[in-house]
Amino acid sequence: MRSGNRPADGMRPVSLEYGVQPHADGSVLLRIGNTHVLCSVTVEDKVPAFLRGKGQGWLTAEYGMLPCATHSRGRREAVSGMSGRTYEIQRLIGRSLRMMLDLQVLGERTLRIDCDVLNADGGTRCASITGGALAVRMALRRMVVQGQLASMPLLVPVAAVSAGVVGGRPLLDLDYSEDSTADVDANFVMSGDGRWIEVQTTAEGAPFHPDLFMAMARLAAEGGQQLFALWEGEE
Amino acid sequence: MRSGNRPADGMRPVSLEYGVQPHADGSVLLRIGNTHVLCSVTVEDKVPAFLRGKGQGWLTAEYGMLPCATHSRGRREAVSGMSGRTYEIQRLIGRSLRMMLDLQVLGERTLRIDCDVLNADGGTRCASITGGALAVRMALRRMVVQGQLASMPLLVPVAAVSAGVVGGRPLLDLDYSEDSTADVDANFVMSGDGRWIEVQTTAEGAPFHPDLFMAMARLAAEGGQQLFALWEGEE
Amino acid sequence: MRSGNRPADGMRPVSLEYGVQPHADGSVLLRIGNTHVLCSVTVEDKVPAFLRGKGQGWLTAEYGMLPCATHSRGRREAVSGMSGRTYEIQRLIGRSLRMMLDLQVLGERTLRIDCDVLNADGGTRCASITGGALAVRMALRRMVVQGQLASMPLLVPVAAVSAGVVGGRPLLDLDYSEDSTADVDANFVMSGDGRWIEVQTTAEGAPFHPDLFMAMARLAAEGGQQLFALWEGEE
Amino acid sequence: MRSGNRPADGMRPVSLEYGVQPHADGSVLLRIGNTHVLCSVTVEDKVPAFLRGKGQGWLTAEYGMLPCATHSRGRREAVSGMSGRTYEIQRLIGRSLRMMLDLQVLGERTLRIDCDVLNADGGTRCASITGGALAVRMALRRMVVQGQLASMPLLVPVAAVSAGVVGGRPLLDLDYSEDSTADVDANFVMSGDGRWIEVQTTAEGAPFHPDLFMAMARLAAEGGQQLFALWEGEE
Amino acid sequence: MRSGNRPADGMRPVSLEYGVQPHADGSVLLRIGNTHVLCSVTVEDKVPAFLRGKGQGWLTAEYGMLPCATHSRGRREAVSGMSGRTYEIQRLIGRSLRMMLDLQVLGERTLRIDCDVLNADGGTRCASITGGALAVRMALRRMVVQGQLASMPLLVPVAAVSAGVVGGRPLLDLDYSEDSTADVDANFVMSGDGRWIEVQTTAEGAPFHPDLFMAMARLAAEGGQQLFALWEGEE
Amino acid sequence: MRSGNRPADGMRPVSLEYGVQPHADGSVLLRIGNTHVLCSVTVEDKVPAFLRGKGQGWLTAEYGMLPCATHSRGRREAVSGMSGRTYEIQRLIGRSLRMMLDLQVLGERTLRIDCDVLNADGGTRCASITGGALAVRMALRRMVVQGQLASMPLLVPVAAVSAGVVGGRPLLDLDYSEDSTADVDANFVMSGDGRWIEVQTTAEGAPFHPDLFMAMARLAAEGGQQLFALWEGEE
Repeated sequence: MRSGNRPADGMRPVSLEYGVQPHADGSVLLRIGNTHVLCSVTVEDKVPAFLRGKGQGWLTAEYGMLPCATHSRGRREAVSGMSGRTYEIQRLIGRSLRMMLDLQVLGERTLRIDCDVLNADGGTRCASITGGALAVRMALRRMVVQGQLASMPLLVPVAAVSAGVVGGRPLLDLDYSEDSTADVDANFVMSGDGRWIEVQTTAEGAPFHPDLFMAMARLAAEGGQQLFALWEGEE
Repeated sequence: MRSGNRPADGMRPVSLEYGVQPHADGSVLLRIGNTHVLCSVTVEDKVPAFLRGKGQGWLTAEYGMLPCATHSRGRREAVSGMSGRTYEIQRLIGRSLRMMLDLQVLGERTLRIDCDVLNADGGTRCASITGGALAVRMALRRMVVQGQLASMPLLVPVAAVSAGVVGGRPLLDLDYSEDSTADVDANFVMSGDGRWIEVQTTAEGAPFHPDLFMAMARLAAEGGQQLFALWEGEE
Repeated sequence: MRSGNRPADGMRPVSLEYGVQPHADGSVLLRIGNTHVLCSVTVEDKVPAFLRGKGQGWLTAEYGMLPCATHSRGRREAVSGMSGRTYEIQRLIGRSLRMMLDLQVLGERTLRIDCDVLNADGGTRCASITGGALAVRMALRRMVVQGQLASMPLLVPVAAVSAGVVGGRPLLDLDYSEDSTADVDANFVMSGDGRWIEVQTTAEGAPFHPDLFMAMARLAAEGGQQLFALWEGEE
Repeated sequence: MRSGNRPADGMRPVSLEYGVQPHADGSVLLRIGNTHVLCSVTVEDKVPAFLRGKGQGWLTAEYGMLPCATHSRGRREAVSGMSGRTYEIQRLIGRSLRMMLDLQVLGERTLRIDCDVLNADGGTRCASITGGALAVRMALRRMVVQGQLASMPLLVPVAAVSAGVVGGRPLLDLDYSEDSTADVDANFVMSGDGRWIEVQTTAEGAPFHPDLFMAMARLAAEGGQQLFALWEGEE
Repeated sequence: MRSGNRPADGMRPVSLEYGVQPHADGSVLLRIGNTHVLCSVTVEDKVPAFLRGKGQGWLTAEYGMLPCATHSRGRREAVSGMSGRTYEIQRLIGRSLRMMLDLQVLGERTLRIDCDVLNADGGTRCASITGGALAVRMALRRMVVQGQLASMPLLVPVAAVSAGVVGGRPLLDLDYSEDSTADVDANFVMSGDGRWIEVQTTAEGAPFHPDLFMAMARLAAEGGQQLFALWEGEE
Repeated sequence: MRSGNRPADGMRPVSLEYGVQPHADGSVLLRIGNTHVLCSVTVEDKVPAFLRGKGQGWLTAEYGMLPCATHSRGRREAVSGMSGRTYEIQRLIGRSLRMMLDLQVLGERTLRIDCDVLNADGGTRCASITGGALAVRMALRRMVVQGQLASMPLLVPVAAVSAGVVGGRPLLDLDYSEDSTADVDANFVMSGDGRWIEVQTTAEGAPFHPDLFMAMARLAAEGGQQLFALWEGEE
């Protein structure tokens, strides 16, 4: 039985809290079970060197974990330097959220997304994408209010969910204890209309049959529907 | 007039939330006005090299700020490396909290304090010390429960408060807008019986008369009394 | 038309050269079209700290590119530090090749894989995995000859191939010019029996329909068959 | 008895040697007992980015120790990176010396102060401030001679002295052997008219009563008078 | 007897392969015995800051070794940082190749030389210089073809060779096994007309008589003649 | 005419001051004209990892320059990281001084040499070697006095001197103004009996004829005689 009697295709409880970092242009604290990620957006009036003078914007992400977010304390990356895992995750977040909008509409501005994990219980990269997308929407709305944008740009809603195979059984939205014993794990980044943005799946102990992948994909589609419902709520 | 009609000798509202990082051995979220600092303690079964084999413990601190905690986003120190300011603050926190107990009673263990600023509105180093001390107490109590310590060690309560001179007028517990226009600012780290652990005072624009220091010291003593009342509350 | 009149499901010409770095315990220069990767294996008589005393081995990978391997010269990472992309790729190579064998049979030894790109024309991470797997086999055979292993361990053949969607059309084994205009790209790491080890797929311009993923998966299966034929050749 | 029969309120012998680094715009070798610090000033025709275009100058300091300056050799910071202690000290020196003059008069120039400890016997940060202030004056005089400044700016003389409590007894200007057994130590940065610029005091073993601070402040005032006499001498 | 029955004044077999890195502006794979170095040149349309606006060009070099190039695997410098040995070698290569031409003729362009050792068997720095010089010529010829230069500049042919004293006997072009037992070793960087550009000689076990240096210099002159013959071959 | 009417084969005035860093095991301040280098030796009771358990000692050197030692202030390497030039010089100093004695006699101890340039006027690496050798002798004598060594080991006196060709004329011991206009410069590290330890010569503007090298070698032999006279003086 899964913790909390969750069915195989059930998400953990999800909640949102907007505006927790008032200095940011947009901020969301997303809680999925005991995974809590604070996603904030800063609008900067410049773009990286490779885009200067092209009249378009950029979106980039940084990811971090508080040292005590995890079961055994992790080293502070300000001391140890950024790990390969961190690089990998923040590149994934950035690629995923750049699918949300036509970067031309930003003009020469950068949306900088900070995803900081306050507590980790599996699925932090997915939570960062899901929460980050909502924080981006909040920041864009504020840009409209402040006159930086003439109107709200057309957005592709983006969310991400994990799935895995544990003891031979496909499961949606793994928590840490499931993740650490999984045979396969996967992350699906999806758009609101059910298309895919990024899919990563990894064998943990042995190669797996593609049919298991298909089962995980079906679970992810169900999970996505629940996450996109978050887009309906009030900020 | 001070924001919120505070009198010159008034602290901002203070609140505590224990256990916000359940993986840590002790954790406290301290809010002083809009300054929010998460202080967590990890008990490690080893000591730094310079203490090995001496049968005593150690206590050390690390300090960080989420990038969006401040008015204009700060660079993530995992990227830029740790700043001089961060080094200075975490050394101060460590020195201050080492006064709390006889490190002999810990055996060869280290208490590692993480102070992470979620929102900054002045006084983050003082809040880190005040909150860190309560998190240390929580971790020690847990060590007793888990049998790592035979009994609760004798503790020196420690708290810290800022004071300053703004427009010629001594004020307690500066917020960011006061701090950024202060003529003098000072931090007082105190023990529960009114003695001093560390005092730092800095002229911002011009040298100041020692009498102003005495006025700030009196304000700090009053502020300390309010902070030590936090030691009475429930965890 | 694809360069060299390749059909949509055709691999570029592949060739192998064993033993190009005679000081290594195993080495392979794999050429796939104009992508040339030198994969070498070093056997070390120790394991990382987290495995010490557990009686099992480890396998890890490092990846690099000569500065002039690419269209415009890349910065030497000895100067600039390792990029996020490099971290991401070498973690993928390591995870993939650890599926080749039961690490218990190595005893407390590490297989260290170096994948260095001499020329890049798309698909360097896949070529690193495909070539690295063959270099691992060569190193294990040598360990048997030298008496470090009693017998050749059972191996899972591993290879990787890229696929993508260019102009709406699914294609196998993208070269650089195709990759830089692709709508979707994907990397499939497979075992010799057609199972999956790691699959990563990324939208480049817009979310894509899962059916396109299935089409890429079919192409990858065909490409895999051609790559596993390399396992039949002479060292 | 203190070394050399010093009374509790006695400074160690102080001497100055100007111009020891002829390439610098100002340089002073300050010897206080066996603490020898070489303070040099370089005038640079630019300011840091945050001040550009504002028409004012800047003053900043760097601090270092020769590896063999201390009882047991310290690691060279060019190898180990700068320590937290170094950051803390050089920030203190910079803040203190910026009180010497109105930075507007410099125009867009930076005074860069280098304080390098040749031999350390306690009090190196205070000696750096005291010597640095005299080197600044020398550099400003040279700027007048060379026509970079129309006239000598009005200066606030600055000097610093340590005090401490050893065996319960307040003492002025601790040497290393006193400092390493002190209960409390303090650094007072003062202006020539007896006002304060920066005061730092730290409990070494246990919290201390504010009265001890007052006693140290009185000693520091006496020490300051001796140090400001150095301003009368010939360059 | 030397390996391969080489006489004391014999070079190992030398071969060249041009164009192995087609993305570079010039590239040469130089093999001297089992020492294989890939030398590539990139033409950049800018110069370092210290030369900007002076209308002249620059030439600089970087040197690296693949980890498995050596008998026991070396640490990848992207991980460990650049070693002192690497700095020393690449500075030598840069100084040597800057003697090839009048840098004025380049205009504000930089020739960036990458020397990467694929296999090391002694003499890698000399091989880097010898191969780098030929790669520079190739790049300059291409600049003429592409119209970046009006005509081929006058070149000073440059080549380098090692010599040493092994068991009391002066030898030309040491391989690794000779080099590791040598009493003295030396590197001669020469121009095509027999003049010297850089000479470095080092005692390995004890000071040596200047006469031995003269004997090595004679051997180097002979070796140089063989290397300059490479300048006659076809690209 | 050379500065101070020096003849072509004349050294600048040389002086020694022993014991300037009393915490070191040996220290010498060597002044050659306006080049002032402080050389100190620390005896450490351990050897680097590659020598552990072999029963022999080691000698290694570090080199630094105070920022204001040079005409225009140099960046502090604690901030900027160690430059290639510094690596090159400290490796040369270490190699040279290891020729002074049989490292077996030290037991498993390391002599660590710190050479810090207080003022630079050309020839700092040679001065570091010459001064460092005398500091090593002082430290060894102290080891005998303290009973760490049974008797004074047999020493090879070592010294170094620069030479160059300026305006076509070979000169001994270049100062900065000569060095910066030299056509060729060379450093000779010699033993007391006239043999060579390390010789480095570099063309600055164009290749040079080997005869010029021979002329510089003769000058260096004369300079060496003057430097070895320093070995006769009192400590």
